[in-house]
Amino acid sequence: MSSPTDINRPDVLAEVNAVFDAYEQALVTNDVVVLDELFWRSPLTLRYGAGENLYGFDAIQAFRQGRPAANLMRTVTARQVTTFGSDMAVANIEFRREGSERIGRQSQTWVRMPEGWRVVSAHVSLML
Amino acid sequence: MSSPTDINRPDVLAEVNAVFDAYEQALVTNDVVVLDELFWRSPLTLRYGAGENLYGFDAIQAFRQGRPAANLMRTVTARQVTTFGSDMAVANIEFRREGSERIGRQSQTWVRMPEGWRVVSAHVSLML
Repeated sequence: MSSPTDINRPDVLAEVNAVFDAYEQALVTNDVVVLDELFWRSPLTLRYGAGENLYGFDAIQAFRQGRPAANLMRTVTARQVTTFGSDMAVANIEFRREGSERIGRQSQTWVRMPEGWRVVSAHVSLML
Repeated sequence: MSSPTDINRPDVLAEVNAVFDAYEQALVTNDVVVLDELFWRSPLTLRYGAGENLYGFDAIQAFRQGRPAANLMRTVTARQVTTFGSDMAVANIEFRREGSERIGRQSQTWVRMPEGWRVVSAHVSLML
């Protein structure tokens, strides 16, 4: 393990960019198996969505299973991934959905768990 | 340094709760010196606010200096702080402002830097 002040180590950044890309692809195709896999399977996992506050992996999973698969496509208009040491990262994007003028934002905190990189906290919202 | 899978170590959790309390107190009193101090002084620091997307410490600092000090008081209605190992944490709250029925959410990722615990990424929004 390296110090958290070792910012954007190229090997770590490449790993996190890869899992982040996998997440985004799963999101727009509503691949709930992959989405579930990439979230930490813990009661402490948390996701604030545009219209809901979900506490615990089970609540997040249930929300995804109940969500219509239509209109999940979005265009990422800004992206910033930053890694700290070898085991943690933040990934932030701005996005727009087709047919909407509003700017969406998605923030995730990723941690390297024994099973792989996992989202431990996420926040999605539309800017006022 | 401990493994990131060492969740909510009591000493680490106490530290992060203390800096989080200091941040909340500074926010509601608009103590911009303390708010600035608790954000990582880096161009990589990011803050998505309810109505703005700010990239870099300087942009965040400028926003705070230009913000009216009135009506920052809020009531925290839910709070969850989770630490991973000795050097990282996520802090999430739900809040309401006086005179508003809307549910606010604030997510922060904290990292232990040589100068102390600092927010490296933050996202504030109002739920739809």
